[in-house]
Amino acid sequence: MIASPFPVLRLKPKANARAIRHGAPWVYDNELVLDRRSKSLVPGTIAVLEDAERRPMGLVAANPLSRITARMIERDVSVEIDQAWFERKITRALELRTRLFDQPNYRLIHAEADGLPGLVVDRFGDALVVQPNAAWLELLLEPLSAALQQVTGVSTILKNAAGRTRSLEGLDDKNTVLLGDAPDAPIMVSMNGASYAADLTGGQKTGLFYDQRPNHAFAARLSEGADVLDVFSHVGGFGLAALAGGATSALCVDGSAPALALAEQGAAEAGFSDRFATRKGDAFDVLEALGQEGAQFDVVICDPPAFAPGKAKLEVGLRAYERLAKMAAPLVKEGGYLVLCSCSHAADLGKFRFACTRGIGRAERAGSLIHTGFAGPDHPLMPQLAESGYLKALFYRL
Amino acid sequence: MIASPFPVLRLKPKANARAIRHGAPWVYDNELVLDRRSKSLVPGTIAVLEDAERRPMGLVAANPLSRITARMIERDVSVEIDQAWFERKITRALELRTRLFDQPNYRLIHAEADGLPGLVVDRFGDALVVQPNAAWLELLLEPLSAALQQVTGVSTILKNAAGRTRSLEGLDDKNTVLLGDAPDAPIMVSMNGASYAADLTGGQKTGLFYDQRPNHAFAARLSEGADVLDVFSHVGGFGLAALAGGATSALCVDGSAPALALAEQGAAEAGFSDRFATRKGDAFDVLEALGQEGAQFDVVICDPPAFAPGKAKLEVGLRAYERLAKMAAPLVKEGGYLVLCSCSHAADLGKFRFACTRGIGRAERAGSLIHTGFAGPDHPLMPQLAESGYLKALFYRL
Repeated sequence: MIASPFPVLRLKPKANARAIRHGAPWVYDNELVLDRRSKSLVPGTIAVLEDAERRPMGLVAANPLSRITARMIERDVSVEIDQAWFERKITRALELRTRLFDQPNYRLIHAEADGLPGLVVDRFGDALVVQPNAAWLELLLEPLSAALQQVTGVSTILKNAAGRTRSLEGLDDKNTVLLGDAPDAPIMVSMNGASYAADLTGGQKTGLFYDQRPNHAFAARLSEGADVLDVFSHVGGFGLAALAGGATSALCVDGSAPALALAEQGAAEAGFSDRFATRKGDAFDVLEALGQEGAQFDVVICDPPAFAPGKAKLEVGLRAYERLAKMAAPLVKEGGYLVLCSCSHAADLGKFRFACTRGIGRAERAGSLIHTGFAGPDHPLMPQLAESGYLKALFYRL
Repeated sequence: MIASPFPVLRLKPKANARAIRHGAPWVYDNELVLDRRSKSLVPGTIAVLEDAERRPMGLVAANPLSRITARMIERDVSVEIDQAWFERKITRALELRTRLFDQPNYRLIHAEADGLPGLVVDRFGDALVVQPNAAWLELLLEPLSAALQQVTGVSTILKNAAGRTRSLEGLDDKNTVLLGDAPDAPIMVSMNGASYAADLTGGQKTGLFYDQRPNHAFAARLSEGADVLDVFSHVGGFGLAALAGGATSALCVDGSAPALALAEQGAAEAGFSDRFATRKGDAFDVLEALGQEGAQFDVVICDPPAFAPGKAKLEVGLRAYERLAKMAAPLVKEGGYLVLCSCSHAADLGKFRFACTRGIGRAERAGSLIHTGFAGPDHPLMPQLAESGYLKALFYRL
């Protein structure tokens, strides 16, 4: 065996080496022999993972500060982790996106499933927003950034450090510019025939999420000639797509004034302003008010933040989804459509569907389920990490 | 209370009346008080369902021969079940399909979820194929057929009696013509930009299934410039859609010579013959032979018949799905796509995904899951009948 330049992490005899060989990408602290040396590794150090019999299994990104102490990044231990390595991974990821999308607006890298654990990169035309959510990426930011520029040819690369998992990895939350200049105004992003205004530097509340794209598209197919209500609209994801699909009107409801301002900007850009309205406020309050006004719509969409982000909040979260369904259903005209979404990891599809169906029943409405959608194909999953399939969209006809 | 012209079926006190009030569409024999009178009802008789306190709950189609002894067809017990009633149900179902599809090729009625328990109607342009899979429909075939003609304006209505559940309802398997003339040759049906030859009178093996339409479309998006292998191709569902999506070549494998002949007819109709080939044989044998030949494809699709049609066959079926994945994965080029489908009720999404992922791992390949698809929106589900979500399509990138 060739002497390796990398430190070694070794599995405990009891660890599930087979699962790791078959593709499990994460190794937890309790599966590893953690001596003083391995505990003192700089977070993000590349190491060789060995099984209990000292056979090398691959290169991992080690972080003794994190419960996910090793993330498999390369099965071939003789490979160098350099700019060329990043370029190969990024090229492969880009191939899929280029095949699927006409325009360069998509999630380019979706972490483990694109072979780059902890890395998220969104592309907005000529700009990339990079989220390095694991320590190894922070150490290799320079070759990563160079590789991204090389493969995509973009002129701007921003680093967004708002990822919630960064603190678990011992990382700071400081945004920086890695290439070019940060845009000083929201940029326009075209998707499903609509235009969205995305504020790339304003943080999560005003950026743009690509994961709902196929669900926006399906809602748009239901919206020709329809009056559409988009609750928890953010920058207008569903509402603007519905207008592009021929909706007669769209009303976007959100608690964030900056998000609604961007939604209005998107509507103006596409020439939809005369069919578009917004209402700022707590979603439940607005739903109640609309119910009291006797308002009804052909299509009602609710895409709330995660009500059940973790197992501890599952029951409370499911009750909130049920309540939302119960309040939204009466606002749907007979024969119309109700779209209910969840981005809660903890609420699986069956539990979420049960809560929604119950809420609709408690509103004394009945519905058939015409479509179930997930995150788009620029958000691939590791089949071994079933929980990463967080996004669900249920399309009911009432 | 108005005297009802209908006989009465009464729930046992222990039956779950609340579930039925909230939308459960089926009442089993053990939930009902079945005296001599109710046991002697003609299969298909319309009856009033009452709860244990004799409060009417709705009109049901009764069949003492079936374990599903009552199917809820109408919540309002004062309504007449006549041609006008069928027209209202069909109009509502047609509205959804017209909204979703440019051409009149779709499943028009998908049983319970379209408010017509046991009824399946597929539309092929100017022709309908009706499957009355419950006894009540057989008794009301005349107003049903008249309503279908009235609402859709078609010139041909065929009755297909091949449904497997008909024998459970005490019905025969005799196909008949309800309106117009049975076509004496396969008809061409356009879908996803491809043409499919459908033999409407030749039975299940040579008809056309609409349920995979969105999955055909997704596979087509992956197929530009690709060599595509379509295993268990039937009349060419995936293969011809892939060619319409720009595939360089498509090879369709099936055990049925008539199905492959129709696939070739579809390819010829669309001008794809020079890029199209078929291979007749047992799918597993052909996969093995292709493996030995060292053949590789950019996209491989396996859409087998139900390996796990019922709970008794679940374990055997899951092993068959795993074996299929293991044999198909080596035929996929590095960076290519493997599409694995299941139409088994008993194998739920999690179990099916696990079996497929394991088979891919046993072939020493690794993949990310870029898309999970279900049956199209012309196959709506009753949320209460989760098992009716039988169709799953997993899109892996290897």
